[in-house]
Amino acid sequence: MSSEDLTRDMKRTVGIEAAHMVGPGDVVGLGTGSTAEFMIEELGRRVREEQLDIVGIPTSFDASVLARGNGIPPGTLDDVDRVDIAIDGADEVDPAMNLIKGRGAAHLREKIVDGMAERFIVIVDESKLVERLGTKSPVPLEVLPMAVRPVMRTVEAMGGDPVLRMAVHKDGPVITDQGNMVVDARFDGIDDPGGLERALNNVPGILENGLFVGLATEVLVGRISGEGRIEVERRT
Amino acid sequence: MSSEDLTRDMKRTVGIEAAHMVGPGDVVGLGTGSTAEFMIEELGRRVREEQLDIVGIPTSFDASVLARGNGIPPGTLDDVDRVDIAIDGADEVDPAMNLIKGRGAAHLREKIVDGMAERFIVIVDESKLVERLGTKSPVPLEVLPMAVRPVMRTVEAMGGDPVLRMAVHKDGPVITDQGNMVVDARFDGIDDPGGLERALNNVPGILENGLFVGLATEVLVGRISGEGRIEVERRT
Repeated sequence: MSSEDLTRDMKRTVGIEAAHMVGPGDVVGLGTGSTAEFMIEELGRRVREEQLDIVGIPTSFDASVLARGNGIPPGTLDDVDRVDIAIDGADEVDPAMNLIKGRGAAHLREKIVDGMAERFIVIVDESKLVERLGTKSPVPLEVLPMAVRPVMRTVEAMGGDPVLRMAVHKDGPVITDQGNMVVDARFDGIDDPGGLERALNNVPGILENGLFVGLATEVLVGRISGEGRIEVERRT
Repeated sequence: MSSEDLTRDMKRTVGIEAAHMVGPGDVVGLGTGSTAEFMIEELGRRVREEQLDIVGIPTSFDASVLARGNGIPPGTLDDVDRVDIAIDGADEVDPAMNLIKGRGAAHLREKIVDGMAERFIVIVDESKLVERLGTKSPVPLEVLPMAVRPVMRTVEAMGGDPVLRMAVHKDGPVITDQGNMVVDARFDGIDDPGGLERALNNVPGILENGLFVGLATEVLVGRISGEGRIEVERRT
């Protein structure tokens, strides 16, 4: 099997396993991205075939389309007074279960939904595990368009290397589902994720950042076992 | 003179005085609201009659229209690498020059522009002075529409009393220039404005709040003197 196929299989395996952590009556935060997609598909199958009674709260336009397409009754945060369980991917996961998210530019809505969930299950393949956040991935910032230049200067003053994320299949920068832009702020490893998260949240014009600190309650990791089989490791 | 006329005269007096703190070549942050309007008008007069050479950075759609109408060359934060001086009103000013802003729902863009200004001059009439922030005014929050309900619950858990701001001349809630909603969070006096500002900034879905802590460098206060004349007090 190619390494791409293996990665895909790891994602599918953790996505399906996570979908089985959902119970009847749950309000479920539906994550965004390739791993979450497998989870949504399996959850849809359970709704159709097992008459699982749930409401899904999508974290993006993409998750919303997938939920409808898979027959998961969609809800909004106006319809519910709680989120029982959110299931979402991540770009990096450290040993304390702190995350970097936002490669899909959905981190603003994800943080709202994942952050209010009683249980927030992170689903990743093993390539996303890091000893220290920020050595590989930049921290994605959702930024008000008028503030992109001053925000980039502020990130530089904070020791980061900011890049405005450019679009593909569209000229110019990526525009988020909320109509904002994304600045990817590269730090050479992050010693204090909570401190950096708070500092970034305090910068006017940065509407949200991709550091998710103290939010995850469980991580499912798709791994290749010694015998070359895919297994799921659970971390709490 | 009626008390309304007096208030208007106090606002005009401080607005005009602030406009004279601007020098040639300055990049000027243009505030929003009735007091800032007098400042923009006087600044426009100086541009036309004194050939004052400035660029104005508006903090709102309203300020932008006023700037153009008064002949002030408008710029954006993409055009400039600094803001020399910002002049803006406030809803409340405490003795440490910390502010509550956002009655005009412009506090997100105001905080970006005022916050990057080298000098940030606050212009108010004496009715805006308070010993302690938050006993009269709520703290306006700019909130992503999908997050209004969870944000209101979070504000309650923080000890505040949240109200979704409703519009006039439009059914339903106020929508900001950025397409978001405003939740007015009433606290019964705020003991630690900096702590509350940071705590609110950390709530997913709150894009900005109206606490401006440590940003103002000077306050001009319009007052009625003992002889019933209007005078301007400068605080630094």
